[in-house]
Amino acid sequence: MHIVPVNLGSRSYQIMIDADLLSRAGHLIARHAMHKSIVIITDMTVASLYLESLQRSCCEASLIVHPITIPAGEQHKHFATVERIYHELSLLKLDRHSMIVALGGGVVGDIAGFVASTFLRGLPYVQIPTTLLAQVDSSVGGKTGFNLPSGKNLIGTFYQPLMVIIDPSVLTSLDPREFRSGLAEVLKYGIIVDDSLFQLVDTRLGQLLDHDIPTLSAVIAACCMHKASIISQDETETGLRAILNFGHTFGHAIETLTHYGTYTHGEAVARGMAAAARLSQHWGLCNSHLVQQVTDLIGKAGLSTELPHSSSKEYLDVIQKDKKRSGGHLRLILVRKIGEAVVSDRSPTELAQALQSALGLP
Amino acid sequence: MHIVPVNLGSRSYQIMIDADLLSRAGHLIARHAMHKSIVIITDMTVASLYLESLQRSCCEASLIVHPITIPAGEQHKHFATVERIYHELSLLKLDRHSMIVALGGGVVGDIAGFVASTFLRGLPYVQIPTTLLAQVDSSVGGKTGFNLPSGKNLIGTFYQPLMVIIDPSVLTSLDPREFRSGLAEVLKYGIIVDDSLFQLVDTRLGQLLDHDIPTLSAVIAACCMHKASIISQDETETGLRAILNFGHTFGHAIETLTHYGTYTHGEAVARGMAAAARLSQHWGLCNSHLVQQVTDLIGKAGLSTELPHSSSKEYLDVIQKDKKRSGGHLRLILVRKIGEAVVSDRSPTELAQALQSALGLP
Repeated sequence: MHIVPVNLGSRSYQIMIDADLLSRAGHLIARHAMHKSIVIITDMTVASLYLESLQRSCCEASLIVHPITIPAGEQHKHFATVERIYHELSLLKLDRHSMIVALGGGVVGDIAGFVASTFLRGLPYVQIPTTLLAQVDSSVGGKTGFNLPSGKNLIGTFYQPLMVIIDPSVLTSLDPREFRSGLAEVLKYGIIVDDSLFQLVDTRLGQLLDHDIPTLSAVIAACCMHKASIISQDETETGLRAILNFGHTFGHAIETLTHYGTYTHGEAVARGMAAAARLSQHWGLCNSHLVQQVTDLIGKAGLSTELPHSSSKEYLDVIQKDKKRSGGHLRLILVRKIGEAVVSDRSPTELAQALQSALGLP
Repeated sequence: MHIVPVNLGSRSYQIMIDADLLSRAGHLIARHAMHKSIVIITDMTVASLYLESLQRSCCEASLIVHPITIPAGEQHKHFATVERIYHELSLLKLDRHSMIVALGGGVVGDIAGFVASTFLRGLPYVQIPTTLLAQVDSSVGGKTGFNLPSGKNLIGTFYQPLMVIIDPSVLTSLDPREFRSGLAEVLKYGIIVDDSLFQLVDTRLGQLLDHDIPTLSAVIAACCMHKASIISQDETETGLRAILNFGHTFGHAIETLTHYGTYTHGEAVARGMAAAARLSQHWGLCNSHLVQQVTDLIGKAGLSTELPHSSSKEYLDVIQKDKKRSGGHLRLILVRKIGEAVVSDRSPTELAQALQSALGLP
């Protein structure tokens, strides 16, 4: 078992990563639960695959489970879903020690985390992420939230889980497209902080795509370790944590411009990372070899590096509405070499010019 | 000017209390605001009285104000109001440094605080409470929230303001019934931690009811100091902070049983404090003299100490649904002498018997 500590003072916790851990999750949860009765929040897709296994495991650990199942998909990551969960929770006799378990991908984790952070002003919660994306990224670090019609993740909290339980075996049932999307976030950690992880993915891509569990576990553990290290230094994204947004400024813009219907989050981030690399070269931070390395590996992972064709003005408008602004400037995450990201504030005018000349947008 | 520090490490802040401070609030806000543009959340009643004065003061400090006005009253402390504010905020170009100012009573403060804690995962906010209740209680300590149909304050966060600006002069326009209701919370501090405050209210009740500003300022400062001290020791109510709920278990029960339509919060708390004192005597914690002192001063302040007639079973059911439970036990705040509260866990059976024998409920 890989155990990655997340050091956040009184809010510290552990990420546990092991094959078939889901079938042993009940005992891990029971160790932290103050009451016998717990709530599992999951979605319909994940429920049909893994809820029974988790419930059996909880039952063996003498826990009583109240499952709450929400519809699957990003389009349900909105307030109506949160409200429905609030309603169901209010029918149970909960107190501030009642535990919430989030079983699912990023949407379930973000919504369940938000509910946990706000119901009775905060309940303890455990993340059991079931997608590669959630295992290497969204389940760690305590970002919770949901979307408004006007923007993604506009509402949310910083609220740390008590524990993250990661079972790489569940990824065998993951849609291959979703799996490749998760690889985009894995590559992100390589590019921003760990050149050896970048090389490892390059050399062992075959094993990863074949769901080789030891390779997967090692890669997931490396990503979690990096994320844990970054958020330990900057829990609420006042500085360093921003580098985790590498590829995400453009990624979010792509998702918004295509109305979240065309690309998965990882596919958008892959394209965003390629764009960020090209801009880094444009502004003289790196050479064309780095851009080639980044786009090659993204391509080998089965992801595209093309930027969907909208005008530079459309991109700029959307990016300016995104939340990573600092005063009048736009905070971009660029790359100097594999394993070294840099934060760079650019004026809208500067970015507009670069969108045209470096990325060839009309 | 009275300045009360709230010591919470990196989340420390000051409470400033002074006559006519509203007209100087702009400069205080500008000192903390990272952008020229701020959002003021208020309600229609308060807006008609004080928004113009605050806006003028902000204008003098070169701030640009976006006011958001919500309907007045506890019945609007629900998610629809939060959602409406989210929508209005999403139309403005805000980032994580954009400041929210809450101008109003407890409902405005709780809702604006919740919005501030969740919009873009947290914006800085300032409280300007305009009722006695909010000035001595709800504006300090970072409790935010709103009601669900199934219960009061079921949703919320702990999120500290950057500053609390208290102008006792605004209380002259407060409905006398609301003013007396605020006195209930003042008496609460006397009963739980400060016998000299209890005596002060007793001897200077006339001046208080006449809105004598120096007396009011001193009393408000004393209450804020006690609240600050308690929450500095226990920010998220894991222990000591619970004593602030003296009178509130029954207070909330009374509000629920009368569907929030009959009594103000303070009127319900006054009755709840009398009930808690009687239970304290019943369980041998204090003598009948203390009960007499408490009920006498509540009466002199123009508040009633009668418990509305519902059955003991009805009270128990509602109290069990309330959030201050710890496992199977009910956590009650009782009193040993004026200035000394005690936390006491009682079984539902024990409480049911006491409701009948000590409080005479059917």
